[in-house]
Amino acid sequence: MGLPTVAMVGGGQLARMTHQAAIALGQTLRVLAASPDDPAAAVSADVVIGSHDSLDDLRRAAQGAVALTFDHEGVPPEHLHALVAEGVSVLPPPDALIHAQDKLVMRHRLSELGLPVPRFVDLSGADDPGEVLVGFVESCADGVVIKAIRGGYDGRGVWLPDSLDEALDVLADATASGTPVMAEERVPWRRELSAMVARSAFGQGATWPVVETVQRDGQCAVAIAPAPGLSDERAEEAEHIALQIAQTLGVVGVMAVEMFETDDGALSINELAMRPHNSGHWTMDGAVTSQFEQHLRAVLDYPLGATRALAPVTVMANVLGASETPAMSMDERVHHLMARMPDAHVHLYAKGERRARKIGHVNIVGGPDEDVATVRERAERAATWLSTGVWTDGWDPHAATDVPDPART
Amino acid sequence: MGLPTVAMVGGGQLARMTHQAAIALGQTLRVLAASPDDPAAAVSADVVIGSHDSLDDLRRAAQGAVALTFDHEGVPPEHLHALVAEGVSVLPPPDALIHAQDKLVMRHRLSELGLPVPRFVDLSGADDPGEVLVGFVESCADGVVIKAIRGGYDGRGVWLPDSLDEALDVLADATASGTPVMAEERVPWRRELSAMVARSAFGQGATWPVVETVQRDGQCAVAIAPAPGLSDERAEEAEHIALQIAQTLGVVGVMAVEMFETDDGALSINELAMRPHNSGHWTMDGAVTSQFEQHLRAVLDYPLGATRALAPVTVMANVLGASETPAMSMDERVHHLMARMPDAHVHLYAKGERRARKIGHVNIVGGPDEDVATVRERAERAATWLSTGVWTDGWDPHAATDVPDPART
Repeated sequence: MGLPTVAMVGGGQLARMTHQAAIALGQTLRVLAASPDDPAAAVSADVVIGSHDSLDDLRRAAQGAVALTFDHEGVPPEHLHALVAEGVSVLPPPDALIHAQDKLVMRHRLSELGLPVPRFVDLSGADDPGEVLVGFVESCADGVVIKAIRGGYDGRGVWLPDSLDEALDVLADATASGTPVMAEERVPWRRELSAMVARSAFGQGATWPVVETVQRDGQCAVAIAPAPGLSDERAEEAEHIALQIAQTLGVVGVMAVEMFETDDGALSINELAMRPHNSGHWTMDGAVTSQFEQHLRAVLDYPLGATRALAPVTVMANVLGASETPAMSMDERVHHLMARMPDAHVHLYAKGERRARKIGHVNIVGGPDEDVATVRERAERAATWLSTGVWTDGWDPHAATDVPDPART
Repeated sequence: MGLPTVAMVGGGQLARMTHQAAIALGQTLRVLAASPDDPAAAVSADVVIGSHDSLDDLRRAAQGAVALTFDHEGVPPEHLHALVAEGVSVLPPPDALIHAQDKLVMRHRLSELGLPVPRFVDLSGADDPGEVLVGFVESCADGVVIKAIRGGYDGRGVWLPDSLDEALDVLADATASGTPVMAEERVPWRRELSAMVARSAFGQGATWPVVETVQRDGQCAVAIAPAPGLSDERAEEAEHIALQIAQTLGVVGVMAVEMFETDDGALSINELAMRPHNSGHWTMDGAVTSQFEQHLRAVLDYPLGATRALAPVTVMANVLGASETPAMSMDERVHHLMARMPDAHVHLYAKGERRARKIGHVNIVGGPDEDVATVRERAERAATWLSTGVWTDGWDPHAATDVPDPART
């Protein structure tokens, strides 16, 4: 049929779900996976086994593909520039992707654009980073966040020191391990938002409704679409920020712009992800076009799909590996969930159930008469059940869950 | 994770779309395909290359799978009985499946159950089938249909003789080619309906809204969900018929019951299909649970998913290979369609574009203010465009299309 092959670096759940979208469009998604057991490799006929750190493996994956894109950002930028020089269509382009790979580059660029970001300092290049940190901490009324400039995700590479001494300890540990870090002012916020946007190679942009995300232990746990009670004005501002970043940086594909809604009702940009993102999983069942199909459309320079929500509220809750493997098998847990919630959309990634590992998610698309709290409670109950094998009948969205802290590195 | 493997006989588009559903549930769909280029084999990591006519190949496919099920019914019943004797869970069971394989067995059984079927005669066992046919034709005011008892699909194996002489010619040809045939009374009908039902191994049943199907040249061209203007009473009757057949025959999986709505407003059962069916493709985008996920749930004895429609109307239109291959590539056609209809759900099967061959479908889920005619027109335009590369601006649902008669055998 002459329909295109897209190569994706990484064989995780994002590639797995992109493969589902590629199947619908008659396309081929080739994945570069570390192992044939990776979530995407296990379900795809076109798999290149190799490493995202190897230029040769990246070349093999890109061979004959219309575009090379990403399931994660952890690919050496120098390899991507080499591929571009060889004529590979790397999307998003390396000069855009660097803003999702390097937090310092991102902060500098977004500040220059006048976009709302917290104050920050680079601790990686200073002669005396301790002195810089002391001065910065003293200037921040609400404390600081220290972040690894590269390589962090899902709470890894992010530290929230509660005192100057703790901050200096984090810096000393980072220096000892050779991890370049930066510090940012902590922003007092009331909640976290994510604005998902897609931009095609041609330059068409499209945003989904802005969602509220709930993080637990540094990981996205829940996404509520659209963000409840967000004013039209603030939602529009968030969408415009996402579109402006996509346009200005030359992003091609989907991008999540994670933001804080601050205590005084303003927006503050936290992170960028230039790939399908956990905060967009709700689109698989809750929007006309899913983020996975949209990512393919964008990198293939197809016109983008409609992003309208299908229901007044859709809630996504992550299924995480529990601290103790449940006595009941996942198959049995799925069975019981389906009996209790025949409308739950279950998405499992075929990953081993390691503690706090993302192994799936559940989408609940609210019925016409369901309010946000009801839909959210159902989604969280479903995900907690699949995670732990325990029905949380006295479920409290503000309580700690059994699904605990990932190790922070 | 211990999630199950289901084996499916056949590597066509139904297996391809079932694979998409299996990916979501963390499962593995193994396909028995004739070629690695078959629609499902091209996108799956677990493929057995072989023939549905070979017991050994069927055994290889079933090895280690929780259940063996079907993308088409053309599997020798004796092989299925042998597999059952060896302990394979064949679903639907061979004793149910035979009613979708053998039209004479089906007609006898449904008549015995008192269900609405046309009068029929067996022409395969009579000493003088010509004499039987003459007598039958004389008793049928509206003419007869002659059908191959086994192996027909998409209009193949179905003849509509316009006179007694033509009927005798069909019989003579069938006799000469060794094709056992039967004759049925033609039922004057106003439209065709399909009632899709699922039944789990445990015996849970669920129906989707009854759809209207439009056949062209013996093939399903369009499905409108729900069937416009169908009275609640008639819809309920159709759903009850489907549930009764599923329960009585011991069907496990999904089943389409194709019916005529007769000129006097009654129902008359035409065909059974015990697998995901073209008339259920709309459920992929238009219902809470798709027929493909539901089929997996049923054969795995999971509780069934909700079957509610997501919109007041969803229309599915098939993309057929055109008589002349369009100058514009399919990739370009998809591009233009997406520009014109950003909400069109495109499903392509990665099959070569042979004349009248089903190579994909488009679902249009109607917006809240769209009427049936508008949604149908959009779906048909989209499918005709993908088929032919021609926008039918003066589109007329009752006119002949450029997509013409499949050869009838």
